[in-house]
Amino acid sequence: MRYFVLSFLIALAVTPLALAQEERLLGFRRESERAQRELEAKLQAIPNPDNLREYMKLLSARPHHVGSPYDRENAEWILSKFKEWGFEAEIETFDVLFPTPKTRIVELVAPTSFKARLDEPVLAVDPTSDQKSEQLPTYNAYSRDGDVEAPLVYVNYGLPADYERLERLGVSVKGAIVIARYGMSWRGIKPKVAAEHGAVGCLIYSDPRDDGYFGGKVFPDGPMRPRDGVQRGSVMDAPLYPGDPLTPGVGATKDAQRLTVAEAPTLTKIPTLPISYGDAQPLLEALGGPIAPVEWRGALPITYHVGPGPAKVHLEVEANWDIKPVHNVIARIRGAVHPDEWILRGNHHDAWVNGAEDPVSAMVVMLEEARALGTLLKEGWRPNRTIIYCAWDGEEPMLLGSTEWAEAHAEELRQHAVAYVNSDGNGRGYLSMGGSHTLQTFINGVAREVTDPESEVSVVRREQLRRIARATTPEAREDLRRRTDLTIDALGSGTDYTAFLDHLGIASLDLAYGGEDEGGIYHSIYDDFYWYERFSDTDFVYGRALAQTVSTAVVRLAGAEILPFDFEALAQTVRGYARELKALHESRQMEVRERNLQIEEGLFQATFDPRRPIVPPPKEDVPPHLNFAPMDNAIDLLEKSAGRYAAAADSALSSDEPLPADAVRALNQKLKESERRLTSPEGLPRRPWFKHLLYAPGVYTGYDVKTVPGVREAIEQKRYAEANDEIVRVARALENEAALVDSAASDLEAIRK
Amino acid sequence: MRYFVLSFLIALAVTPLALAQEERLLGFRRESERAQRELEAKLQAIPNPDNLREYMKLLSARPHHVGSPYDRENAEWILSKFKEWGFEAEIETFDVLFPTPKTRIVELVAPTSFKARLDEPVLAVDPTSDQKSEQLPTYNAYSRDGDVEAPLVYVNYGLPADYERLERLGVSVKGAIVIARYGMSWRGIKPKVAAEHGAVGCLIYSDPRDDGYFGGKVFPDGPMRPRDGVQRGSVMDAPLYPGDPLTPGVGATKDAQRLTVAEAPTLTKIPTLPISYGDAQPLLEALGGPIAPVEWRGALPITYHVGPGPAKVHLEVEANWDIKPVHNVIARIRGAVHPDEWILRGNHHDAWVNGAEDPVSAMVVMLEEARALGTLLKEGWRPNRTIIYCAWDGEEPMLLGSTEWAEAHAEELRQHAVAYVNSDGNGRGYLSMGGSHTLQTFINGVAREVTDPESEVSVVRREQLRRIARATTPEAREDLRRRTDLTIDALGSGTDYTAFLDHLGIASLDLAYGGEDEGGIYHSIYDDFYWYERFSDTDFVYGRALAQTVSTAVVRLAGAEILPFDFEALAQTVRGYARELKALHESRQMEVRERNLQIEEGLFQATFDPRRPIVPPPKEDVPPHLNFAPMDNAIDLLEKSAGRYAAAADSALSSDEPLPADAVRALNQKLKESERRLTSPEGLPRRPWFKHLLYAPGVYTGYDVKTVPGVREAIEQKRYAEANDEIVRVARALENEAALVDSAASDLEAIRK
Repeated sequence: MRYFVLSFLIALAVTPLALAQEERLLGFRRESERAQRELEAKLQAIPNPDNLREYMKLLSARPHHVGSPYDRENAEWILSKFKEWGFEAEIETFDVLFPTPKTRIVELVAPTSFKARLDEPVLAVDPTSDQKSEQLPTYNAYSRDGDVEAPLVYVNYGLPADYERLERLGVSVKGAIVIARYGMSWRGIKPKVAAEHGAVGCLIYSDPRDDGYFGGKVFPDGPMRPRDGVQRGSVMDAPLYPGDPLTPGVGATKDAQRLTVAEAPTLTKIPTLPISYGDAQPLLEALGGPIAPVEWRGALPITYHVGPGPAKVHLEVEANWDIKPVHNVIARIRGAVHPDEWILRGNHHDAWVNGAEDPVSAMVVMLEEARALGTLLKEGWRPNRTIIYCAWDGEEPMLLGSTEWAEAHAEELRQHAVAYVNSDGNGRGYLSMGGSHTLQTFINGVAREVTDPESEVSVVRREQLRRIARATTPEAREDLRRRTDLTIDALGSGTDYTAFLDHLGIASLDLAYGGEDEGGIYHSIYDDFYWYERFSDTDFVYGRALAQTVSTAVVRLAGAEILPFDFEALAQTVRGYARELKALHESRQMEVRERNLQIEEGLFQATFDPRRPIVPPPKEDVPPHLNFAPMDNAIDLLEKSAGRYAAAADSALSSDEPLPADAVRALNQKLKESERRLTSPEGLPRRPWFKHLLYAPGVYTGYDVKTVPGVREAIEQKRYAEANDEIVRVARALENEAALVDSAASDLEAIRK
Repeated sequence: MRYFVLSFLIALAVTPLALAQEERLLGFRRESERAQRELEAKLQAIPNPDNLREYMKLLSARPHHVGSPYDRENAEWILSKFKEWGFEAEIETFDVLFPTPKTRIVELVAPTSFKARLDEPVLAVDPTSDQKSEQLPTYNAYSRDGDVEAPLVYVNYGLPADYERLERLGVSVKGAIVIARYGMSWRGIKPKVAAEHGAVGCLIYSDPRDDGYFGGKVFPDGPMRPRDGVQRGSVMDAPLYPGDPLTPGVGATKDAQRLTVAEAPTLTKIPTLPISYGDAQPLLEALGGPIAPVEWRGALPITYHVGPGPAKVHLEVEANWDIKPVHNVIARIRGAVHPDEWILRGNHHDAWVNGAEDPVSAMVVMLEEARALGTLLKEGWRPNRTIIYCAWDGEEPMLLGSTEWAEAHAEELRQHAVAYVNSDGNGRGYLSMGGSHTLQTFINGVAREVTDPESEVSVVRREQLRRIARATTPEAREDLRRRTDLTIDALGSGTDYTAFLDHLGIASLDLAYGGEDEGGIYHSIYDDFYWYERFSDTDFVYGRALAQTVSTAVVRLAGAEILPFDFEALAQTVRGYARELKALHESRQMEVRERNLQIEEGLFQATFDPRRPIVPPPKEDVPPHLNFAPMDNAIDLLEKSAGRYAAAADSALSSDEPLPADAVRALNQKLKESERRLTSPEGLPRRPWFKHLLYAPGVYTGYDVKTVPGVREAIEQKRYAEANDEIVRVARALENEAALVDSAASDLEAIRK
């Protein structure tokens, strides 16, 4: 089949539709495949860009953050639409801690004085920018209250590596207020790392280099961030656990046992506030000390210095620490054949302000998918499996709605959930696919049948060609041309799949189009319908493409005879991770060896520049060798059983007769288990909520994934005994996975006999 | 000896002085070596930073460009000092074309209007910035006169690759005025390439990203370029030939035959003017069209667009096309043993304005060297060979003084010159060494005995450690640690060695310290004593180090029994060039093959973004294979004879008895010839003035060298038949060189018998 798909890909540019019929659907026999294809063709014709526009206009008409009147109104409206389209739907409410601002002060008190504006101006041309009474002021949710005055230090993006650099420059942030720029990590990492280094306050600003005028004209003349635009956002310590800070691991129901606010470990340790580049410039300009390293310098027309001082800043933050309701809309279509096998689909509906792009651009896609399914329902179609559509509330403060729902329903989800498909915003451009690697083959198969609105080739082919265009080595290009499927990204966090994948071990996907347009309105009052209709997917054709992609995935997952997991892709991916981990460890060893040698040969003294003094690094022990063998052996096992399973499934599905119902049900129950096997009940070291052993957001990245996180972060954080232990834990999980896959293969081989 | 030197290097960090005695001096017998070392130790103790400061104060007290009263006064003063120190000295004057500004207008005429200031403001704290009546206005010398009005296009640095990028963006400069930023090439390349693409005018501005506030505080608060600071400079087509545009190839004496100004081929084809970033910002801000590629964007607080238009610019340039005198000061110490073997040493004395850094910081070093030699003369020392110190005039307009002198004295120089040692400005930091690779071993030996003022290790060791610190691969670091000598840079152009090395084939060196301080006063009125004493080599200790380095090189060249050329270093270097050329050609082939494949597979259509349209590249023929064999064979020959020569020299110099005078004289005559053998009387294709086959400034780089230029530029410019022919020419030259070296080895072997 692989060879076949390759030639299919090559031919695709010429006659995509004629040949698209030729690809086998994973998990279907030829006979059932035909009906499925007809269904999907019908489904793909339904989504209508005009509807997407209308839904967006309505949902983004007013600010609709957690606890706001319009948040509730939106939930009610979404509920009514699901019902109208034939879903069994309800609103499920949880009560969560959601702080809103009471006091916000940032002022330069020395060497000159300046008071930050902390306000995004109304723009006459933008009709929703003036809804001041309903807008949340600019702030970082879950910042601890505080009132501090201290010298300022510029810390670049505020990542651990930036603090190492500061150390080399001889600059400490102890007792200082840091100013970090947005970007390169989940924002909550910045106050966390600052506090670990002894800072007493944290400002986060949007540098025009990153999403302001450097990238294009600013709003309203262009899509980029204007000088007073501010990125709101949560700064809780989400890599510890997301969701309501007061109810870790359990649903935030009315009667749930709660921590006090003072006990909640995910609040920041220091007061934190976001500011615009208009407000940041006078602060940065007042800094002395060493000149910032070249890569730290942004696009403000100043010389970037690091400090500390003479700039001294007064920062005061106080919140209303209220409990607020989050309203999840949960809508079901009961499966006709396997009602106990659940296909979940979600997108959040809350926003920081009007949120046309985030999240409404994809929320409306999900609604249009639901309308399409409703249309089929009216024509008499019923899915084999149960389909559950979820419009989450409270995603912005950090996955409140989805996390509390997943925690509250943990047991039944572990029992019934097959897969969770997420989205969270959509734009013009390329399909990005992230998810569990057992679903890599499946989602490629789906996406190959969606046509890109601009280029008229398949969205997979288009992305493949973009990757070829961006590849920097002949080897990388050759590999890209050779493979049948696009590799999909491992998932980190920052959106609603987190509880499903990382906490419950449910195979997940995250899908979106984008990458052709830049923007600088993220989490500001300017993320609204006026902006979206002018600068993003203006005719909503990429919205339609996403609706086609996801609805096809949903009905294909709901209809497959054998659940479409591919363990060969998983084994191959984990093999790659093992290679990466060894390379990472070796490069750390080499780095330390080299630095020690440089210290010995006097490199740092000899190249010392008295006008730009640096503190030489200390000598370190070379990291010991690690035992990767258990993991390598387990991957060998997994690879073998994956191959056996693929052959058995292929053979079973080439049967002309229907497969025996009970045997298939038992088989699918095993397959559903497969992602669970990759988790551990104890979770990751020091963060037990995160149970997946292959994927997690990094402790110091927040959004970005760390694959094989127990091992990788142990290496990165120099805990080598732990690294060896984690290798063993991962190996055990992979062995268990291999055993499950082997047993599924046995079952299939038995069916065939 | 190599092994020995390595252990010397490793030990150096511990006890540099004790061990420094151990290294053999190239070209000396042990006995003569001892006297030479004593001489050099004496010499190194003489240079005095206070003198350097005093000379600088005097020489930079007033503007002293070509034709100015103070230029003449400086020449007279320098002459008097040489005479005072015991040199036979004289001023040798040539008459050259030197245009000065009559009219200069830059204005934005649409969509809004703005008139450029074109003037550098007086700064109250800077005592020489107010010498308005003597300062040359900001302009580019040798711009053709013109008066044009046209739409503006931003062309980044204005290099050929930038125009390829513009083509992909669908932007033409035909009939437009281009605005290019300074940097990445000799400035004269910018109007040349612009004109080749059909532009009608050229503005060159200093972006704050490159030498303004991005790099540090601006003058007078810091060393960087202030908003109205402008870089003056020549824009003649120097890669065709430098020096007086009216007298190519001959000295510009009173009666020389001259071209008319209209005939002179090195003048620009379009009017050109430099501007400040203060003047550039309104022009760039008024541009529409595509957003500039990320790497094109500078540090102005604007969104960089490419144009063309709506910005429309009026540019008017008119010059006084006068003939002006250049006054070279030539000072000699006649050699006591070999008066017909000349060691040349030069630095220019003219500046664009006050020129404290460029060129006075190194001109004063040369004077202090002369004083040191004078001191030895007074103690009765006489060099074996003739030493000639040259203070050039007219370097800034493009090597006028040195080129005309070298052309006028071509015959005797070809006959007598052993080597030319150049400098042109000095700062704080690392020794940079460029030159003929036959002198690589020699100059490393000299520099190993100079101690860095900041780190107290040898300047060679310090630079070696810097290279290790900057290397990006373990292989590169290993190579750096393994080698005994630092590789020296091949020479391009932009300063006074050009006529000696490239036109006459005289082995040359170019030496300077620098790299620790940034600055943005280059060719502005702010390059003055006030700036230099605050922001550069403030206590003149690197000036002393350069005096120690160069004077040691001069007396060692003047005193060696056998001229200290090392042909193994040459062979090794050329072997590296051959490798580079093959890799360059292969990468071109791969590039074309890959691009053709991308065109065939529909990559450009599939990734086309209608909001950012690009023009796909055309299909091209894959470059044919080239025959590198003649060059490889010639390098084998050279390597063999170089090895034979090194062994023979080693053996001859280990003799206890003096070497027979006549035989040595004949041998040295051959060695002197060795650099000449690397030239061809016909010169390079389309630029016969440049005769060296291994080194030349690039036709499209201007400063930066193209090694093996005939071959390299033929490949780069897609003339493959020419590339094959040039390989053969280079091979012939290398074979001739090998024959010369072989014959020198025979002579030495005969001496030893």
